[in-house]
Amino acid sequence: MPVLSRIKKPIEKEMAEFEAYFGKTMRSGIPLLNIILNYILRRKGKQMRPLLVFLTAKLNGEIAEPTFIAATFIELLHTASLVHDDVVDDANERRGSLSINALWNSKIAVLVGDYLLSKGMLISVEKNRFDMLEIVSEAVKSMSEGELLQLQKSRKLNITEEDYFKIIISKTAALLSACTACGARSVTDNPETIRLMKSLGENIGVAFQIKDDLLDYEGTGLTGKTVGNDIKEKKITLPLIHALEKSEKSTKKHILGIIKNKKKTKDDISEVIKFVSDYGGMEYATLKMNQYRDNAFAIIDSYPDSAVKESLREFISYTTSRKK
Amino acid sequence: MPVLSRIKKPIEKEMAEFEAYFGKTMRSGIPLLNIILNYILRRKGKQMRPLLVFLTAKLNGEIAEPTFIAATFIELLHTASLVHDDVVDDANERRGSLSINALWNSKIAVLVGDYLLSKGMLISVEKNRFDMLEIVSEAVKSMSEGELLQLQKSRKLNITEEDYFKIIISKTAALLSACTACGARSVTDNPETIRLMKSLGENIGVAFQIKDDLLDYEGTGLTGKTVGNDIKEKKITLPLIHALEKSEKSTKKHILGIIKNKKKTKDDISEVIKFVSDYGGMEYATLKMNQYRDNAFAIIDSYPDSAVKESLREFISYTTSRKK
Repeated sequence: MPVLSRIKKPIEKEMAEFEAYFGKTMRSGIPLLNIILNYILRRKGKQMRPLLVFLTAKLNGEIAEPTFIAATFIELLHTASLVHDDVVDDANERRGSLSINALWNSKIAVLVGDYLLSKGMLISVEKNRFDMLEIVSEAVKSMSEGELLQLQKSRKLNITEEDYFKIIISKTAALLSACTACGARSVTDNPETIRLMKSLGENIGVAFQIKDDLLDYEGTGLTGKTVGNDIKEKKITLPLIHALEKSEKSTKKHILGIIKNKKKTKDDISEVIKFVSDYGGMEYATLKMNQYRDNAFAIIDSYPDSAVKESLREFISYTTSRKK
Repeated sequence: MPVLSRIKKPIEKEMAEFEAYFGKTMRSGIPLLNIILNYILRRKGKQMRPLLVFLTAKLNGEIAEPTFIAATFIELLHTASLVHDDVVDDANERRGSLSINALWNSKIAVLVGDYLLSKGMLISVEKNRFDMLEIVSEAVKSMSEGELLQLQKSRKLNITEEDYFKIIISKTAALLSACTACGARSVTDNPETIRLMKSLGENIGVAFQIKDDLLDYEGTGLTGKTVGNDIKEKKITLPLIHALEKSEKSTKKHILGIIKNKKKTKDDISEVIKFVSDYGGMEYATLKMNQYRDNAFAIIDSYPDSAVKESLREFISYTTSRKK
């Protein structure tokens, strides 16, 4: 059985119900909007975020309507952010199909993103789930702050390891910790449990992002993004940060010179990858990733054995061992 | 005294306090974001929306903290939508200064817009004003739906008067009715009062948008947008819709041919304006605008005389008589 199907097993029924529930929210009175919403629905991704909401909920209690509300809100928000991302990156493809901005245009894509976000807010308001609205709006704010911090730092190339962690905690881990916090919140109001689950999501999120950044150096070609893409785009991530910190002043200057150069050759990219490898950048990042993974495992292991606990362990392993 | 200063008179103190209150929310821990937020603050507009929130609040009770929360939330949201608009329209200027996307870039501008929106949500959540969150998120959804309906209709050029009103009620009137509904909600929980004030904002909003569309035909050159700009961009608004409905089939076909043509000459634009004028398009739109204006006056006139009532009357008059 493929790993994701195995992970989904204990909440299979609920995930199928979620699909129907989510589909119902993706309807509007505006014909053009309906066409676009259907297009998005037909090209759905791996649904990692709803999956995490349901697993965390089931780990802590009985899945009920609030769990569906949380998963829907977060998936709407995540979809909105992908639609906006494709606009700002001028990306023509998403999940192997044309992006909204490519198939329609940027103006429509920004509006559809805004629509999805407000729809998510409205669902939580209508269902009186202000606790979730608080968790999720904090995450949205954090995500945009993280992205902006990254843009600011990458302009100056002076990003430290501390900056890196600050960025990925805001940018990636915030939404995953919103998933686990809302999942828990949907079945319990015990603040200690919610805090613990928030921390679970944050650790998974940080490990997930380090893995993503590692794939740019050691990717197998399976990944959507080509190896070396981050280097091309002057995105300085943990493997490179570590190598730069370990290297002599002159080597550092030389490598930063390559990074700064807008027109990089294939040889330039290879040189940077070799440099990072020589200075142990990948090993160091893997070590750090595994620390966060192990934190996540430790949280899960405080729970008694169950099928859903096993699924969450597999989810965490998958996050840090995936090849794309 | 200039008209806007006269309108502000009864809530002068509160508007000054609002400025300080709003300024405090426009601060962040991210240096780049702070620079941009300061840039936005220094180039603030006429603040019509906060003004409407405060006037409606004072008309119905005593301005207090909830009024400041409502005005801040709506102004954050409005600012977010302007920042996003400039991205999708690829506009380089806003209020006589460079736009965020021009001075920084589109990616940063989309993120700043998302940040402002989530910040507004968070303020209402933190202050436990879920009633306002509901009013405002309904407005955001409506605004994006209205814009999308407009884009859909303008592609096919088959827009009817009914479509036009549906679009402007969603696109423009929704946010102004959120201002008046939240303003009332901040001082009373009487549902009848809130409903009446919502209707006031809707009528002002429709009149405001018809005036905006009229200025494209009869503008004085004072307006930011050049006369004939809507025609150039294939935006079919009430004056033209009416003229097309009144004209013979062959004339209609000829005019639509000009509209469809991507490369319009100055003479083309003049011909369309003359056509609209000949078929009474401007008069008809003015008539309709005045009906909505009079609905707004009638609502205000149900209140006993006061300085704030007089200000609201002036606000409405200004909306429909402004030259830009």
